[in-house]
Amino acid sequence: MSWKINFESIKKDTNFFAELSNEIVNLNEIISIFEAETDGGKKHTWFRLFDDHIEFLDQRFLPAKEDWIKCKDEKEVAYAIREMVVRGAPAIGISAAFGVVYGVKKKLKNKVKITPDIFSDITAELERTRPTAFNLKKALLDMEQEYQNFILNSSLDNQDELLQRLTNRAIKIWFHDFAYCYLIGKFGAELIKDGSVVFTICNTGSLATGGWGTAFSAIRFASKIGKKIEVIALETRPFLQGSRLTAWELMQNKIPFHIIVDSSSAFSISQMKAKGKDICCVAGADRILRDGTTANKIGTFTLAILSKYFDVPFYVLAPSTTIDNVSEKIPIEERNPREVREFFSVRVLPDDVPVFNFAFDITPPNLISAIVTEKGIFRYPYDFSHI
Amino acid sequence: MSWKINFESIKKDTNFFAELSNEIVNLNEIISIFEAETDGGKKHTWFRLFDDHIEFLDQRFLPAKEDWIKCKDEKEVAYAIREMVVRGAPAIGISAAFGVVYGVKKKLKNKVKITPDIFSDITAELERTRPTAFNLKKALLDMEQEYQNFILNSSLDNQDELLQRLTNRAIKIWFHDFAYCYLIGKFGAELIKDGSVVFTICNTGSLATGGWGTAFSAIRFASKIGKKIEVIALETRPFLQGSRLTAWELMQNKIPFHIIVDSSSAFSISQMKAKGKDICCVAGADRILRDGTTANKIGTFTLAILSKYFDVPFYVLAPSTTIDNVSEKIPIEERNPREVREFFSVRVLPDDVPVFNFAFDITPPNLISAIVTEKGIFRYPYDFSHI
Repeated sequence: MSWKINFESIKKDTNFFAELSNEIVNLNEIISIFEAETDGGKKHTWFRLFDDHIEFLDQRFLPAKEDWIKCKDEKEVAYAIREMVVRGAPAIGISAAFGVVYGVKKKLKNKVKITPDIFSDITAELERTRPTAFNLKKALLDMEQEYQNFILNSSLDNQDELLQRLTNRAIKIWFHDFAYCYLIGKFGAELIKDGSVVFTICNTGSLATGGWGTAFSAIRFASKIGKKIEVIALETRPFLQGSRLTAWELMQNKIPFHIIVDSSSAFSISQMKAKGKDICCVAGADRILRDGTTANKIGTFTLAILSKYFDVPFYVLAPSTTIDNVSEKIPIEERNPREVREFFSVRVLPDDVPVFNFAFDITPPNLISAIVTEKGIFRYPYDFSHI
Repeated sequence: MSWKINFESIKKDTNFFAELSNEIVNLNEIISIFEAETDGGKKHTWFRLFDDHIEFLDQRFLPAKEDWIKCKDEKEVAYAIREMVVRGAPAIGISAAFGVVYGVKKKLKNKVKITPDIFSDITAELERTRPTAFNLKKALLDMEQEYQNFILNSSLDNQDELLQRLTNRAIKIWFHDFAYCYLIGKFGAELIKDGSVVFTICNTGSLATGGWGTAFSAIRFASKIGKKIEVIALETRPFLQGSRLTAWELMQNKIPFHIIVDSSSAFSISQMKAKGKDICCVAGADRILRDGTTANKIGTFTLAILSKYFDVPFYVLAPSTTIDNVSEKIPIEERNPREVREFFSVRVLPDDVPVFNFAFDITPPNLISAIVTEKGIFRYPYDFSHI
């Protein structure tokens, strides 16, 4: 098994980038940034690839502790996804793809042949970890497709070839996400005015994706091209992805910001409006339906309603792998009430305090001023039925 | 100094209850509940009166720890208010009144005569603790008025008489608040429909007032008179008054509820609407201007905007002592960023993470469906210029 990426095959991949605007896409530029930032496709901010395991940066305790968790097969990767060692829709898609790779690898080491049933068991284990993010499902469908192509065109006895093909596919999912992030950032930065205040929720940066992020990539790009911006990041209870992870990435990128408690959004927007500031709100997405209905971290819907009230644009930024053009409804994950009863593993409330812990909410398309994907900036009314 | 309350003098007090509806006010009933619940005016949920000190239940660590803090003079009471050992606008008004009493008492013990300058020092120490809540200012103005009446009608040498008069005044402030809470609850319960879901923020119960609470009193009254209601309490970051204190009071009163993170409000309202539930939102207030502009715990403005979006009534409940009919603007307290960076003394974020920690926000009157005081239910447009 080799981690070496075949960029030549990526360049020849007629499906990839086929629909992207030629003007903005400089594939060689993206490849060279990717190679430089990922040590040639071996590591990213939140994961490192090794021959027999993947390591995840444990995002539950950042920035207080920087622990790396080793995962040797699909079960251990599923655990890391379920427990939010890794989180962020694109990131869990990439993690699941590598979960398949290491799951297959371990089975081969144990002389188990990867029959269709065994392959399905591996993907099912990963798919049931988190129900809302579409990227997880999409990445597993891609891996499944790779497996199906393999058994149609080759013999099941060529297990090493199977492993290499699955590996290449996982790396391609990662590289595509890196490229998508780059393009989302480039498009998204156009929407962010020089001198403006940008409100954002959760973490949508490199920790959540295979590249620079989704909403965060637009912030990073806007700052990189010289726009003077100021970020207000919602802390994002219960998991505090905003105050822990986004703050960490903003500091690393030297972008001025303040953290607020989530409920402070209305007052903070009103204060910034009173100062005459241009304001926008940017968010990522965990699943976007074909009409633009968007599931994202709990609190996104609240922020979208506030944006409408204050007449401030509200933008959703996500790769096309987040778009689910089949489903009519989005399953909303309810997580363990303990996440609300505790705070950073410190017990605040007794177990008998009843809690609703919805991990996501659903924002209707009419509250979203634009949706930005790697393919460009889309405006309401949305129609993603052909993506 | 006697803690015995002169209820006969309260009954004869022509100012008190003068404007209240005769129909609803049964003063003897309120006095008997007060006497039963407070051990004849010696203790309440969150404080106990002793000869030479007052004890406050430390609300910073409830319900995990039940510690009581001793305060012997105005400086120690000021500390308890500033550090939020006690909180809630009516509660800090009552605490400040008793802070004056114990401050004067300690000075007398040390043979210091209570000259106007010394009296002003005592009230100034208490007033500068927290800028937003009007009840604090109002209670100190009442104590000041008592002092002024005393020096106009008596000799400064009668220091024991001064102390007794200040004591009586402080207890009257407390008893009035108890009665106001009762009436607010009775009026407010009319607005809460049987079978409805009531959203509330922060803690507005007995821990925040001298009686049953403001918004919480309406919830308690509605439940007491047999309305089947269900409460959704916002946890209320950063201090978690909702998940710690309101949850505690709801459990004690056996009222069904769930805690949510603040940002979950929009999704939770939409879920309840989808189930066909009647919904209302209730909040207390820290200061109400004569046109109904309301300062309250950070997040109230957000909840009011959500109420408007979902076409759900949003009610503010507060005693008339919260109404400031003089000021044009409300000072908004910014508290130590550490409250957002830490939790329960556990460090989440490093010191260099910049934070805006607004303790309150301001809700414009047009978002408030009704304001309930002890005098009744008021509707928009509001005019409290004669209160």
